[in-house]
Amino acid sequence: MPLSKAGLNMSSNLSQNKKTVLSTQGYRGTRDFFPNDQRLQNYVYSKIHKLMHSFGYEEYNGPIVEHLELYAAKSSEEIVREQLYSFKDKGDRTLAIRPEMTPTLARMVASKQKELLKPIRWYSIPTCMRFERPQRGRLREFDQLNVDIFGGNSLDEDIEIILSAVDVLKCVGAKYEDFEVKINHRGIINSFLSNIMNVPEGNISSLLRLLDKKDKLSSDEFSVECKKLNLTQDQTNNLDQFLNSSIEEIISLLGDYAAPAKELKNRIDSLIELTSEKVIKFSPEIMRGFDYYTGMVFEVFDKHPDNQRALFGGGRYDNLIAAFGGDDLAGVGYGMGDVAIINFMEVHGYLPELKKETDVCVIRFSESDRISALKLSKELRALGLNTESPVTLSKFGKQIQNAEKVGAKAVAFRGNDEMVNNTFCVKWLLTGEQEIYNYEKEGFDLFYKKLKMN
Amino acid sequence: MPLSKAGLNMSSNLSQNKKTVLSTQGYRGTRDFFPNDQRLQNYVYSKIHKLMHSFGYEEYNGPIVEHLELYAAKSSEEIVREQLYSFKDKGDRTLAIRPEMTPTLARMVASKQKELLKPIRWYSIPTCMRFERPQRGRLREFDQLNVDIFGGNSLDEDIEIILSAVDVLKCVGAKYEDFEVKINHRGIINSFLSNIMNVPEGNISSLLRLLDKKDKLSSDEFSVECKKLNLTQDQTNNLDQFLNSSIEEIISLLGDYAAPAKELKNRIDSLIELTSEKVIKFSPEIMRGFDYYTGMVFEVFDKHPDNQRALFGGGRYDNLIAAFGGDDLAGVGYGMGDVAIINFMEVHGYLPELKKETDVCVIRFSESDRISALKLSKELRALGLNTESPVTLSKFGKQIQNAEKVGAKAVAFRGNDEMVNNTFCVKWLLTGEQEIYNYEKEGFDLFYKKLKMN
Repeated sequence: MPLSKAGLNMSSNLSQNKKTVLSTQGYRGTRDFFPNDQRLQNYVYSKIHKLMHSFGYEEYNGPIVEHLELYAAKSSEEIVREQLYSFKDKGDRTLAIRPEMTPTLARMVASKQKELLKPIRWYSIPTCMRFERPQRGRLREFDQLNVDIFGGNSLDEDIEIILSAVDVLKCVGAKYEDFEVKINHRGIINSFLSNIMNVPEGNISSLLRLLDKKDKLSSDEFSVECKKLNLTQDQTNNLDQFLNSSIEEIISLLGDYAAPAKELKNRIDSLIELTSEKVIKFSPEIMRGFDYYTGMVFEVFDKHPDNQRALFGGGRYDNLIAAFGGDDLAGVGYGMGDVAIINFMEVHGYLPELKKETDVCVIRFSESDRISALKLSKELRALGLNTESPVTLSKFGKQIQNAEKVGAKAVAFRGNDEMVNNTFCVKWLLTGEQEIYNYEKEGFDLFYKKLKMN
Repeated sequence: MPLSKAGLNMSSNLSQNKKTVLSTQGYRGTRDFFPNDQRLQNYVYSKIHKLMHSFGYEEYNGPIVEHLELYAAKSSEEIVREQLYSFKDKGDRTLAIRPEMTPTLARMVASKQKELLKPIRWYSIPTCMRFERPQRGRLREFDQLNVDIFGGNSLDEDIEIILSAVDVLKCVGAKYEDFEVKINHRGIINSFLSNIMNVPEGNISSLLRLLDKKDKLSSDEFSVECKKLNLTQDQTNNLDQFLNSSIEEIISLLGDYAAPAKELKNRIDSLIELTSEKVIKFSPEIMRGFDYYTGMVFEVFDKHPDNQRALFGGGRYDNLIAAFGGDDLAGVGYGMGDVAIINFMEVHGYLPELKKETDVCVIRFSESDRISALKLSKELRALGLNTESPVTLSKFGKQIQNAEKVGAKAVAFRGNDEMVNNTFCVKWLLTGEQEIYNYEKEGFDLFYKKLKMN
C-alpha cells in the first residue's frame, strides 16, 4: 500500500484535531497559478495553439501517469534513475508521473499507426514532473509544449519543424536577433570520429558524452578529459578545430563520408532563406544527450545577456515506434518548457499587461431589487458581455469602486424610475457620463455597440 | 525510495533489450486523447471558459501533487483512505496526486486572503486522480470543473452559483427539461432530527449517513436500518413523510426551527423565477456526504432515461479556510467531472461533429519548388489561414485527396507559369474551380475573402 502508516496516522490525527494549522505552501518546485499567473499562461498558450493550428498540427493529450515500463524503455537513463516520481497503486502496479510526453506519444501513435493519416502532425502541452533541484528556469512540475511530425519526407519535415520552432518564439513577440537555432546532425560527429579520427568503436560513446558537456569545461579541463580517453594532443586539436568549422569546411573534411553533413547543409540553406541567417546557425557541438535522436538535432538559445542558455530543443528520431511491435515510423519534434518561454519573454520585455476582462457590473440599491438586477445581468450576458452581478450590498460609490477594480467599463442598474419606464441606466466609468437605454432588444444592442467601441 | 528494485531491474532489462514489445495500452482508468477526442474536449471547455468569464469568474490552477496532510485535513475520509494515489518523493516527503481541487483552492485562498478583492469568483478545470473501479461515467483520471465564490452575501452567492451551474449545461446545448437541480439545506434535516423527532445527538450522524444512501435501499431495507438505529415505526414513518414534503410543508412542520428552510425557500423562489420550475426542485434527501458543506447543498440530475443519475453537485461551506490560520471566509461552489458532461451530451444528442480546421494545403510538383511552396505557405499563414505545407512528394491527384481528408477548402500552388507571372493558383475543392491570384497583398486579400465566404 503506497499510503504509509505514518501518513495514515497523521491523517486521522488531523481530522480529529481541526485546530491544527496547515501550511499554505504547496510542494517545493510546484506552482500556484493565481488568476494573474493563469492569465499570462493562457495568453502564451492561446498564441501557441493558434500558431500550431496555422501549421496544421492537431492537439492530443494522454494520461498523467503511465506504467513504469514505458519510461524505462523510452526515456533516458538519467530521467528513469534519478528524476521519476514513481510509485505503486493500490493494485500493486508500478506507475510513474510523466517526466516527458514522448513515450506517451510513441505509445499512442503505435496503437493506431495504420489508421492515422500521414503525415501525422501533432502537438500537446502536457504537465510533467521530474525530481530535480528547483532553480531559475527549472521546476519539478512544469508544462512542456511537444511538437512532432511523422511519416513524410525527412528533409521537408526537418525544415518545417524548425520553422515552427522559430515561430513559437516569434508568436510571443520575439525578433530574429533575440535568439539562435543551433543545428547539428548526429551522423556528422559519428562520421568524423570513426572515419576521420579513427577513434575505436568502443570509445565513441564516452567521447560523445564528453562533447555533450564540453561547454561546461575549460579548454584545459577538456584536454585532460581527452587524454583520459587516450586521444593524442593532435587528435584533441583536430577535434577542437572540427568543432569550430563551418558546414562547408566539414563537408570538404569528411570527403566520402560527408552525406550527413550535405543533408544538413541542405536544411540549413533552406532555413536561412526562409527566416534569417541571424537565427539559423550550424553548431557541431550540439548533441542532445543520448536518447532517441538519430538525425538532425537542434537547440534554441536565448541571446539576451541575462538569460544566455538553451531554451529548448529537439531532433529527428527513427526508431521511436518500433518497440511497440509496429513498423518503423520516423519523426522529428521538440519540447519546450513553459518556464523557459516565460523567462525568455520576461528578459526581452515581451510580457503583456493583462487585466481581468469584466465588461460591466450590475449594481443594486436595496433588498428588493435582487431579481431585477439578476435579470438585467442575464440580458447583458446574453449579449456576450462579461457581467458581474452584485453579491455584496454596499453604497453606490463603493460598488462603482469595485467595478473599477475588476476592470469594468460601465455599471448598469435599474432603480425605481427605470423599472417604471422599462429602461436601464448605465454609468460609463471612464467619463462618469450616465445614460438611459430601453430595456428592449434595441436598447441592449445600442449599449453593446457603445461598450465595444470604448 | 519509491522506485522498487523490481522496477529498476525491469528498467535496465528493457533498455538492454530493445526488442521487447511494449504494450500500447495506457494505465487502466486513464484516457488517450487522440485529436478527435481532444477536439471535443476543447469544444466543451471553450464553451465553459466563455461562460465562466461571462459571470466574472477568473481561472486559477495549482499543483498536480500536494503534501498528503492537505488531503488528510480537507478531503473526506473515503477519499483519503481508499482513493488517494499517495507516495513518497526521493526526499522522503509524503505526497498525493490531487483527488479533487478544493483543498488546493482553500490553501491558495488562505495564503492571500487579505489581498484578494472580494467577492472572490474563481474557477479551474484541473486533472485529478482517484483509485476507483473504472465504470461508465467514472474513471481513475478525470478533469473536474471547479467553480467557487467567497466573501459576499450567502443568499446572492447561492443563487449565482446555481444559475452558473444551470448555464454550464445550457452552454453545451441542454434545455431546462433535460435536467434537474435538486436543492437542500444541511440545517433542515439537522433541525428536523434534533428538534422535531428528538433523535439523540449521538445518533444523528449515523442517521444522516443512512439517509445519504437511502436511494440505494428498498423501503423495507430502509425500515430495517432505521430500527437498528432505535427509531420507532412512527419515527420512521415520520421521517419518510418528511422526505416527501414540499418546502412549504417543511417550514410549517419545523415552526420555530424553520430558519434554514425559510432561507432555502428564498433561494428556490428566486431561482425558479430566473430559470424554470422544470429545473429547480427542493429535495430534502440530498445530503452531499459529510465533508465540508454547512448550508445549501445541491445535485444536478440528468433526466434522460438512459443516464438517470447525479451529474455533479456542490454546496455552501463556512469553515474551509480557517484551518490555515486565517479568518473564516464562507463560500459556495461545485465540481463537475468532464466524463459526466460528455456522457450527458452524448445521451441527449448534443455532441457536435468537429473536423480538423485546415483552410488550405499548399502542393508541390518537383524537387525544385520546395522554397517557393514554403514561402507561399508562410504568406497564407500570415493572413491567419491554417495552412499545411507539403512534406510528401506525390501526384497532383493524391495531394488533392489528402487536402480533402484534412478538411481543406482549397489547395494553392505555384508552377512554372505562376512563378513567371508572379501569381499563385488556387483550386477550390468543393467546386473543382481553378483561379489565379496575384502574388501580392491585393491577391492574397482577395483569396482570403473568398475562402472565408465559403
